[in-house]
Amino acid sequence: MEYTIEQLNGHIEGFYWFGKEDVRLTRLPASTFPRLRKDVAFLATNTAGGCIRFKARTSMIGIEIVMHPSRPYEKFSRAGQCGLDVYADGHYVHTFVPPRDGYFISVAETDGARSHDYSIYLPTYASLEIKSLCVDEDITPATKHRVTKPIVFYGSSITQGAYASRPGLAYPSILGRLLDAEIINLGFSGNGKCEPEVASLVSRIDAACLVMDAGGNLTAPEEEGIITVRYPAFLACVREQHPSMPILINNMQHIGAASWNTVFRRLCNRVRDAIKTTYETMLRSGDRNVHYTDGMDAIGPGDLDCTADGTHANDLGFSRYVSIMAPVLRRVLG
Amino acid sequence: MEYTIEQLNGHIEGFYWFGKEDVRLTRLPASTFPRLRKDVAFLATNTAGGCIRFKARTSMIGIEIVMHPSRPYEKFSRAGQCGLDVYADGHYVHTFVPPRDGYFISVAETDGARSHDYSIYLPTYASLEIKSLCVDEDITPATKHRVTKPIVFYGSSITQGAYASRPGLAYPSILGRLLDAEIINLGFSGNGKCEPEVASLVSRIDAACLVMDAGGNLTAPEEEGIITVRYPAFLACVREQHPSMPILINNMQHIGAASWNTVFRRLCNRVRDAIKTTYETMLRSGDRNVHYTDGMDAIGPGDLDCTADGTHANDLGFSRYVSIMAPVLRRVLG
Repeated sequence: MEYTIEQLNGHIEGFYWFGKEDVRLTRLPASTFPRLRKDVAFLATNTAGGCIRFKARTSMIGIEIVMHPSRPYEKFSRAGQCGLDVYADGHYVHTFVPPRDGYFISVAETDGARSHDYSIYLPTYASLEIKSLCVDEDITPATKHRVTKPIVFYGSSITQGAYASRPGLAYPSILGRLLDAEIINLGFSGNGKCEPEVASLVSRIDAACLVMDAGGNLTAPEEEGIITVRYPAFLACVREQHPSMPILINNMQHIGAASWNTVFRRLCNRVRDAIKTTYETMLRSGDRNVHYTDGMDAIGPGDLDCTADGTHANDLGFSRYVSIMAPVLRRVLG
Repeated sequence: MEYTIEQLNGHIEGFYWFGKEDVRLTRLPASTFPRLRKDVAFLATNTAGGCIRFKARTSMIGIEIVMHPSRPYEKFSRAGQCGLDVYADGHYVHTFVPPRDGYFISVAETDGARSHDYSIYLPTYASLEIKSLCVDEDITPATKHRVTKPIVFYGSSITQGAYASRPGLAYPSILGRLLDAEIINLGFSGNGKCEPEVASLVSRIDAACLVMDAGGNLTAPEEEGIITVRYPAFLACVREQHPSMPILINNMQHIGAASWNTVFRRLCNRVRDAIKTTYETMLRSGDRNVHYTDGMDAIGPGDLDCTADGTHANDLGFSRYVSIMAPVLRRVLG
């Protein structure tokens, strides 16, 4: 059977507005792009966190896509940036890697002996169109997630999934499998700047939990101090719409350059202080649904081998993120 | 100060024959290339495991190289394949990534306040020439390793370092830092086939230990059974030259395709059995210096998220390799 993107409506996760306003794979509604900063609007077309989920008995999965040109990164493999990962019943099977931009069709061998729950994770750092998905027989809806509402992650490139070796290994996607929940990845590479427009969009999502992992994109000298305004305002905007939704605030990890660059160290400390203060202020105001983890416990000054470049987690670093967040998320999700 | 490759003699690790026969960065002596299979000879020009080590007080390190064309891999970042990693006193600092093939010069900011032990790890999957190394002042020899002889690793692509996010994270290099030893990386992507010619070269190295991590390249149907001949013969050849050198035999990890492809599963099991049998036979013959770890304990059937593609370890997988081998190596190295 062959399915178009329209026919996959109901099988697509990670795009909150998909099927509501249109069937484009965008992480924020395309109708809002004119109001967003250009970089945010562009990055919203990256499919990070997107996933096609279905149940099928099939000896192969075929996928037909158009891959739009994406900026090459020297520290990112093409599989990590543009790959599509196939999982069956939560276990890794195969990565489709478009060899170049443009039209692309690929087939993976799967287990046709019995029915499985398949998840196809979409690229973290690329925009694409899905022309069709092919399997041997009809697909049916995937087994429902244990957690009924999605978990939303807002943050930077690390949240978006740079430089995971493949998209299923971005830390929000690992957490989604571990907790059995849909995830919505709102990581914006270099642009997780907590703008009011984005806060307003995030607050429209009816989520099981918001993981707030921003701050790393507000360490530039020319933006010093903005964090102390934007960060609490972002959370206040979300709180207004969702008075009791759990919020997990993850503070910023260590960045290698802070070890030897004293100016940068001061900027990082200021961001970390602002995030900690926001958490403590919410707690003191009586908010019982705000939780805290410290990215330093995932990647601290002695942990740069958990990074690809002193800043961005590698797959080992992502497993550290999962290990600090999973216990808290398990508790708050019940 | 500027140093040519000739002047760096005495500061170069990982190339056992460097400075003895010539000053080319080859992992096997260039004079033997005509006797080796073409793929092995070519791969011997990849600089996996190579390292420039020196002590210096410098605010910058500059390097001038010629990068030779290398095959692009869709699952490998350019930093992982062609990058050069700078460490100071065992801690990660910076990755030089040649943007393309050809002539290339790059500078990294380092700590000029005091003297450090610098290590520059060379690319895992590329051949290059070093034209010069520049630092502020004179370099002096790096602090001597605690382990006085090198540890040799013989194996496949995983040993060579595919698909580490950067060269300092190939598992032999991590072990080198952890144990404070020079390492010689004789991983040959797809070509760790335990040939007698290679055994004879490996046996020429006066090593603290041999880590034998081969087998994964002898699972092809047309080579079935070769492992039962080649593997014990390889080790017998080494043993003849080094009657009491510690040998750590690491058995083959799980490969994803063995989960669903029964033909491949049989071939993998045959390789694993042959390796286990070789170890047991050596033990029974009274060899007291042979040790064993099982790659399945690093990457077993439930651990495919420790891989980039179901076969090759990612950075998380490499940390698992280190965790199974380090305790044994600590013990045998005293």
